Amino acid sequence: MDKKLIAMIPARLGSKRIPRKNIRYMGDKPLIHYPIEMAKSVNRFDSIWLNTESEELGRLSSAMGIGFHKRADELAGDTATNREFTYEFLQQHICDYVVMINSTSPLLRKETVERFLDYVTDNDFDTVLSVISEKEEVFYNGKPLNFSLQEKINSQLLEPVETICWSLTAWKRETFMKLQEQGSNPVFGGVIGRFVIPKDEACDLDTLEDWKIAEGILMSRINIFEERYMEL
Amino acid sequence: MDKKLIAMIPARLGSKRIPRKNIRYMGDKPLIHYPIEMAKSVNRFDSIWLNTESEELGRLSSAMGIGFHKRADELAGDTATNREFTYEFLQQHICDYVVMINSTSPLLRKETVERFLDYVTDNDFDTVLSVISEKEEVFYNGKPLNFSLQEKINSQLLEPVETICWSLTAWKRETFMKLQEQGSNPVFGGVIGRFVIPKDEACDLDTLEDWKIAEGILMSRINIFEERYMEL
Repeated sequence: MDKKLIAMIPARLGSKRIPRKNIRYMGDKPLIHYPIEMAKSVNRFDSIWLNTESEELGRLSSAMGIGFHKRADELAGDTATNREFTYEFLQQHICDYVVMINSTSPLLRKETVERFLDYVTDNDFDTVLSVISEKEEVFYNGKPLNFSLQEKINSQLLEPVETICWSLTAWKRETFMKLQEQGSNPVFGGVIGRFVIPKDEACDLDTLEDWKIAEGILMSRINIFEERYMEL
Repeated sequence: MDKKLIAMIPARLGSKRIPRKNIRYMGDKPLIHYPIEMAKSVNRFDSIWLNTESEELGRLSSAMGIGFHKRADELAGDTATNREFTYEFLQQHICDYVVMINSTSPLLRKETVERFLDYVTDNDFDTVLSVISEKEEVFYNGKPLNFSLQEKINSQLLEPVETICWSLTAWKRETFMKLQEQGSNPVFGGVIGRFVIPKDEACDLDTLEDWKIAEGILMSRINIFEERYMEL
């Protein structure tokens, strides 16, 4: 039987470090358009919802042909966590898996999202996290983690370090609800799958600098620079 | 007494995954111009050397007013390591510290290089590495490294993971020579200092995709996008 997937796009209108981030233009469209258009284009979701406290963003979701999940007032503030607003969302929406697509994911490519969804449906994880995998020498607590001070080896031979990027996350509804009701943490609940996404598709958008980097990477994809070399 | 610093910029003409990388234009100038101009602009080096097997690049270094260290023929191939070519370089150049500036560092800002050099001269490390420090949830060998599955905490509270980025590296000549002559690894030799550089100043240039990301980040610094917002 096909698994029923629904998409949840969390978005607040009041963002702090980058004001009104979700409605700010990144490249040729507002940030919030990226996850909405992505969710629609993959054509794999039973339904797509904007999870927001904002009536204005709610009107936008309707205009773009997706659902408006009005977040409960007590979850509208800065301190509301994934755990709380996802639980409140899942109480009202029946599915096998909810896929959270962050609005801070404008760099995701469609084929990556499709591969992520295949990974969710072809397996039976309770939680699927997106990670960036890097083979580079890492210090942790001041000590070498994946390399030895005694030798310098080719970085391709290093054990990778995987960083959670939160661009895409999937939770099995049944497990999430059960853990939350038991008082356990559902965000990393049950059997966890780690899905590696290409490093140029992950970004933070915490600071204006992050924003400009993401915009630069987006622009770099449209080949505005010609390939040329100096004369020797 | 002031410490004598010299800069070494390693550069090969034959690069594999991105052909002729060092002479390819990134933005408005060839890649190799970035470390050369940076080394000159900080005005802290007793001398600046291009360490290369290529006579053509050697002529460029002379034209740009820096030294040409012609790498020994047996170190001209793909398999020559930092350890070998730095040792061969240090045999011929007397200094307190050699600072390796990689040509794959076009994103470094001058103030960061100056702070790095202060860190080298104000302390007494044998090796100073440049690292990127990130507070994000990391898996290593499939297990959480700096977070707990039992709770989701604010990422600002996570223990950081520091990744060596090789943009800038400094070695105390005396220690490096001694360790190499003992058959020990001098690349991570003696007392190690870790200098944190801003994450938007580090880049890999291993693949064409890395190249485009770096070019995009460079471009993002010149504010080509206007700040605008959608109407709600």
